[in-house]
Amino acid sequence: MVDTVGIVGLGLIGGSLARRLTERGVRVVAWNHRPHPYAQAEADGIFCKSTLSELMDAEPDVVVLCNPLKAMPAILAALAPLMGDHPNTTLTDVGSVKGMVRDQVKAAGLGKCYVGAHPMAGNELSGWQAADPHLYDGALWAITVDESTDYRRFLDVAAMITKDVGNRVIVVDDETHDKAAAMISHMPHVVSTALINELVANPDRNIAAALAAGCWRDMTRVSLTDPDRTRAMVEEDSLNVEALLRRMAARLTDMADQLHAGAAGEQDVMGFFAEGDPFRRYKAAVTHAGITAAQDGTATAAPQAGTTAAGFPERELVVPEAGWQQTLLFSARRGEAITGFVHPRQAIIQLRPAM
Amino acid sequence: MVDTVGIVGLGLIGGSLARRLTERGVRVVAWNHRPHPYAQAEADGIFCKSTLSELMDAEPDVVVLCNPLKAMPAILAALAPLMGDHPNTTLTDVGSVKGMVRDQVKAAGLGKCYVGAHPMAGNELSGWQAADPHLYDGALWAITVDESTDYRRFLDVAAMITKDVGNRVIVVDDETHDKAAAMISHMPHVVSTALINELVANPDRNIAAALAAGCWRDMTRVSLTDPDRTRAMVEEDSLNVEALLRRMAARLTDMADQLHAGAAGEQDVMGFFAEGDPFRRYKAAVTHAGITAAQDGTATAAPQAGTTAAGFPERELVVPEAGWQQTLLFSARRGEAITGFVHPRQAIIQLRPAM
Repeated sequence: MVDTVGIVGLGLIGGSLARRLTERGVRVVAWNHRPHPYAQAEADGIFCKSTLSELMDAEPDVVVLCNPLKAMPAILAALAPLMGDHPNTTLTDVGSVKGMVRDQVKAAGLGKCYVGAHPMAGNELSGWQAADPHLYDGALWAITVDESTDYRRFLDVAAMITKDVGNRVIVVDDETHDKAAAMISHMPHVVSTALINELVANPDRNIAAALAAGCWRDMTRVSLTDPDRTRAMVEEDSLNVEALLRRMAARLTDMADQLHAGAAGEQDVMGFFAEGDPFRRYKAAVTHAGITAAQDGTATAAPQAGTTAAGFPERELVVPEAGWQQTLLFSARRGEAITGFVHPRQAIIQLRPAM
Repeated sequence: MVDTVGIVGLGLIGGSLARRLTERGVRVVAWNHRPHPYAQAEADGIFCKSTLSELMDAEPDVVVLCNPLKAMPAILAALAPLMGDHPNTTLTDVGSVKGMVRDQVKAAGLGKCYVGAHPMAGNELSGWQAADPHLYDGALWAITVDESTDYRRFLDVAAMITKDVGNRVIVVDDETHDKAAAMISHMPHVVSTALINELVANPDRNIAAALAAGCWRDMTRVSLTDPDRTRAMVEEDSLNVEALLRRMAARLTDMADQLHAGAAGEQDVMGFFAEGDPFRRYKAAVTHAGITAAQDGTATAAPQAGTTAAGFPERELVVPEAGWQQTLLFSARRGEAITGFVHPRQAIIQLRPAM
């Protein structure tokens, strides 16, 4: 049960979270490294504090670190002595890589009160001015745990996300999270950047750019966002990105070899284009569920028994005391997501299409 | 001067073109390999013919081949004897590769009356049912020429596109076109497909898919369109796609090596993310011109002297009798596009940002 949430950092992600929680009736206390957003934040009902010590004096049940990753070691060093006086406060964060943050949290001696988190929300903007509670509409969060994570603390964070933010949750270990994030975001950002580098190196770049249409626009969109932010993201997950880049390079080289082989490579080329069919079917199933929900009104109406607002069926999942991390990880691997709790050992699970 | 246009093939591209030309007051005669769209097409004012011979009897000034590329040799063989009786009719096409089509046209003995063309218009749909004159809104066409192209025939096709369709034109040779199309479409389609293949091969594919957001959605959109169509497109431009895939594989491997090197690779990683800056500046300039046009009303109002509807300035370009192909190719390389003609040797050129 979460009454008060502490937000450290009122940028795009932290500011949006603070505003959303406040709108939904949660008491929010906040600290930012510079007080410039405080007047507007106070007007929005957020209680702004001038020091981390004052933030902790407000007795938050959960403190969410929304500061930039590069500030994490300094923030953790400042928090460590304060957390000792508030042993029931749970620490979480919204960082886009989880293994590195846990290492830093442990190094600061705060491992026991920590549960990792990463909301799949964001856009190309940044800062308090861009903060918007709707940023979290329909979002899914990854919660990251390890074998030592305290279940009560996990529940605090999961309840905050599902009940207070109104989002869905999957539970994974740090490595699984960081590999998955490399797969669907960090590595593709590098690929997108490599595409525009290749265009710039092309002697007929202006002719190619003139001929460019939807394919090029979509595949290079993320290369246009702040390249320094992208570089930091890639470097923070560099081992996973490196491995995936080598696999992608091998796939592209194989395809080049098959095209080179002409008729002899025809079967392999057909195989290349068929290999992704499980993802195509998965996307069609997700889209179909969304369309069905829109047609029968469940997408906008209140959830009905057994069917969620998004048109996906739900069921209950018993969370065992021993090995709860594995139970929840296997659930995520089946494509399921947690939407709430009936009681602490009984989660509500949304069943979604899976590959 | 074009009075009558013949359209061969009433699919998405040909049907949309026929409807747009008819709407804009051009007489359109059409033939399709099956007559099922004829009732609706006739209702739209298109004169449908049951044979290619009847189509040619209508004395079209330009015949546009909008049939699938795989039907091209058969269509050209059927047209060849008919074109002999209509020596003034100019032949063009809308194929997405140009070198292969010109070879087929020459093999059919129709090289003298041919001018290549490729409209940058399309979507994920196909067939007459999807035909829509708005598909060509704001489109740019590549016209492909070689040293033997007749200037009068080029003018017929260019006038049809700029005056009758209301689009812009750049003039290139086949090789430049096919390399540019490989750069901004054919190769990126393979990269997009490789991304979903990599996801499907990932043991935690469902967790990765659950975490996927805008980056992944945009970069894999084209992998979801009919993989057989993509495969045909890639195979028809296989030499250029092969070369670009090898270059992309090298770029991804280099980046993997630099990430592997850690601090020693830091400067190279920074260089990788800076390399595409000319494209980022180009995109910003194009977007800025569009915003300026919207703000001062030129985007919706009639073009003003010296400024086009899209907010880009215009000037006139003299097209010499000797070496006109090179003059127009160099103009395209500078990022310019033809929007019309003052007289046959004086083109109106739109000046756009360039890299």
